[in-house]
Amino acid sequence: MVDSSIKITSAKVIDLRVPTSDQLLGSDPFHKEPDYSSAVLQLETNSGLTGISIVFTVGAGTDWICHGVEDLCQLVIGSRLQDFVSSPVRLYRRLIDHHQLRWLHDGVFRMAAGAILNAMWDLWAKAEGKPLWKLLVDLEPEFVADCIDWRNISDALTKSEAIDLLRSRRSEIHNREKQMLLRGPKAYCTAGWLGLSDQQILETIQRLQIQGFDSFKLKVGRDLQHDLKRIRFMREAVGDQCQLMVDANQYWSLTEAKEHLSHYRGLGLKWIEEPIARDDVLGYLELSEQFSGAEFDFACGEQAASPVIFKQLLKSGAIKYCQIDAVRVAGVNDVMAIILMAAKYGVPVCPHGGGIALCNMIQHYGMWDQIAVAGQSETQLVEYIDFLQDSVEHPVEVLDGHYRAPSAVGWGLEFKSDFLDRHKFPDGEVWKSRSPSRKGTAFEVDLG
Amino acid sequence: MVDSSIKITSAKVIDLRVPTSDQLLGSDPFHKEPDYSSAVLQLETNSGLTGISIVFTVGAGTDWICHGVEDLCQLVIGSRLQDFVSSPVRLYRRLIDHHQLRWLHDGVFRMAAGAILNAMWDLWAKAEGKPLWKLLVDLEPEFVADCIDWRNISDALTKSEAIDLLRSRRSEIHNREKQMLLRGPKAYCTAGWLGLSDQQILETIQRLQIQGFDSFKLKVGRDLQHDLKRIRFMREAVGDQCQLMVDANQYWSLTEAKEHLSHYRGLGLKWIEEPIARDDVLGYLELSEQFSGAEFDFACGEQAASPVIFKQLLKSGAIKYCQIDAVRVAGVNDVMAIILMAAKYGVPVCPHGGGIALCNMIQHYGMWDQIAVAGQSETQLVEYIDFLQDSVEHPVEVLDGHYRAPSAVGWGLEFKSDFLDRHKFPDGEVWKSRSPSRKGTAFEVDLG
Repeated sequence: MVDSSIKITSAKVIDLRVPTSDQLLGSDPFHKEPDYSSAVLQLETNSGLTGISIVFTVGAGTDWICHGVEDLCQLVIGSRLQDFVSSPVRLYRRLIDHHQLRWLHDGVFRMAAGAILNAMWDLWAKAEGKPLWKLLVDLEPEFVADCIDWRNISDALTKSEAIDLLRSRRSEIHNREKQMLLRGPKAYCTAGWLGLSDQQILETIQRLQIQGFDSFKLKVGRDLQHDLKRIRFMREAVGDQCQLMVDANQYWSLTEAKEHLSHYRGLGLKWIEEPIARDDVLGYLELSEQFSGAEFDFACGEQAASPVIFKQLLKSGAIKYCQIDAVRVAGVNDVMAIILMAAKYGVPVCPHGGGIALCNMIQHYGMWDQIAVAGQSETQLVEYIDFLQDSVEHPVEVLDGHYRAPSAVGWGLEFKSDFLDRHKFPDGEVWKSRSPSRKGTAFEVDLG
Repeated sequence: MVDSSIKITSAKVIDLRVPTSDQLLGSDPFHKEPDYSSAVLQLETNSGLTGISIVFTVGAGTDWICHGVEDLCQLVIGSRLQDFVSSPVRLYRRLIDHHQLRWLHDGVFRMAAGAILNAMWDLWAKAEGKPLWKLLVDLEPEFVADCIDWRNISDALTKSEAIDLLRSRRSEIHNREKQMLLRGPKAYCTAGWLGLSDQQILETIQRLQIQGFDSFKLKVGRDLQHDLKRIRFMREAVGDQCQLMVDANQYWSLTEAKEHLSHYRGLGLKWIEEPIARDDVLGYLELSEQFSGAEFDFACGEQAASPVIFKQLLKSGAIKYCQIDAVRVAGVNDVMAIILMAAKYGVPVCPHGGGIALCNMIQHYGMWDQIAVAGQSETQLVEYIDFLQDSVEHPVEVLDGHYRAPSAVGWGLEFKSDFLDRHKFPDGEVWKSRSPSRKGTAFEVDLG
């Protein structure tokens, strides 16, 4: 039971941007010069607790999300935390099924709704004094099922199937929690950003291997010969025992994907991530059939806009790795639904990390999934990005290539106030001195 | 050739809202109290011409679109119309593939990008002194194909197939244009809004039948017995010779849709619109297989977010009526792609109308499709909504149940300045006196 007097009193929304494009970190064929950014929401209460969430973006457009989040805050300011806790799906429906806003579709709208929900979940976990994963692990199966909007997904997973699935894990849940407290979710890392030199990649790999990493990803897409060369370079650099994955960030047409991937056989790749458009379900299905004999499988999800898209990808068998994102869909409620569907269809949950503090969020999902839903860690991999952790009070920690179970309450999304101040867009110190051409939408790069 | 000195000098974005919820016009199971609204973009030039576009919404959230459109205007202010005209896909890519903004996905982002593109097309048509449909009809097949981003759709329709298809219509195009100038696209009308009484519906039908309409739609979804009663009531009211369609606005789960629709056989319905979620391609496919023997087929598209979703619905045969929307996808460029795919797969294009001035836009697509792409009018139906036409200088006109070919230059989206002033949100006369509870996001209704 949370203190029933806790009320949301006000909200603050911050447009936070880091000029990561200076070093081309995070670059891929489409997102050539990303500035890792976040719309940061802080819900203040009368209790001293603050509910925090972020929506990760890559620079321009963060203000669009901020605008939406500010608008939606109207629906929670003045409300009691207890009202949320008693039925999280009620707030979910007020947002997602809002009789006028739902016209805005997914994208900005669903991301903004997710910010509100995730901040409320953060507040709840803080009121309970638990990290978010622990709050989720301790929920009764029936309660979890009640958090989910079943309308559009029940043909893939019914509410009672979800309850049965969660219940079947209960006997092992305490053991699993103990194990995961000793060694958290296995991590993997993108070492091969498109804009980096071979030498930079090599240094990254060496640094990561010392930290115990044995699974690496690289970006491909623009040029077949360059990509093949780089895959072979990466394989040589990491050795035969490591897992190697590639990510095309939706750069190919379906026809191009087939052509490129016909050269990818025999390179020992574990997965091909986002070979085609994020929501081309039938395209993924066609690829999975065409390459059913290959050693690689298909992964996607970081830009899948809703549980409806995930449902189709999972139910049809089109993807074999489910890359949930913590901030693209509508918060914990949507992600619960997706992780449960993945468990039913036996698809490993491998959350998408990156950006500012996104890994700080997904580690909780990795914990919940591997303790209480999939109930195992053998096939799961959680993305890990090793920069910008100096921005937060509770950085993610890795040990022997595994996340360490997060111990801070809530999401652990407290930013250092100095970092927030310096990176506020456009008036923070980091931005105010930059040339107008580096700021916002007007900052374009050659599409090539 | 357009005058190469024409430059975009400034932009004005207006949040325009009409309190249609006062009369429950436009209501359906999800959008219970819509306030028909538009984000209106006016691109001013040094030539006296103004490029106008709208993004239709249902009230709250219009400000989200306005925010996005204002941001994107940076990319065109100062540019020459001639630069757009020489390669419309170049601006399309600068918007849709923007290396940072594309992270925002579809929804608000694609709708805002569409506003920019549609205003540029408007300006072009005005510079040529042509209605938009005529500008499109006069384009060479190769030019049309060059306007389209083929990356994500070429597995369904290649560029050369599109050119061949357009070219095959060329011999008849002048005849078709003459015919369509005499009698424009056949129209249908939604008479059965969910919130209206039987008596109100009856009066609407009678009024429309006098105007020559013989195709009507009603809203269903919430209650099977109520819906069946209303379908029978509507059938009796319109007579056996009229076409009758129903629209569930995505209210059902796939399982519920199957259950409800099993009672819909034998009622003489032409189509079932949006029985399930807007992007549940595999769900539509399952429905189309299950009800392959029924007299009705499936329709959707008004909330399909991108050509990728349309591609799948069309290529798989999941839908038999393609309901393009003029303002949800990225402008003329995306709609061209969708109409061409529909033509290849033999799916009638039946554009989604409604709202403020949406019909003023879709009539141009009906003209282009029926003259130059499908090249026939037998199977096509364009939605017609008979209210709010007093808001514009060039109202849509119907004669004998058909649109009259629009003759104003561009889209013909000039709003009456008095109407604009009165309905500006939140400071226009219509809004400033309303209670805060009726304004914006905080205006909620019971979800039931």
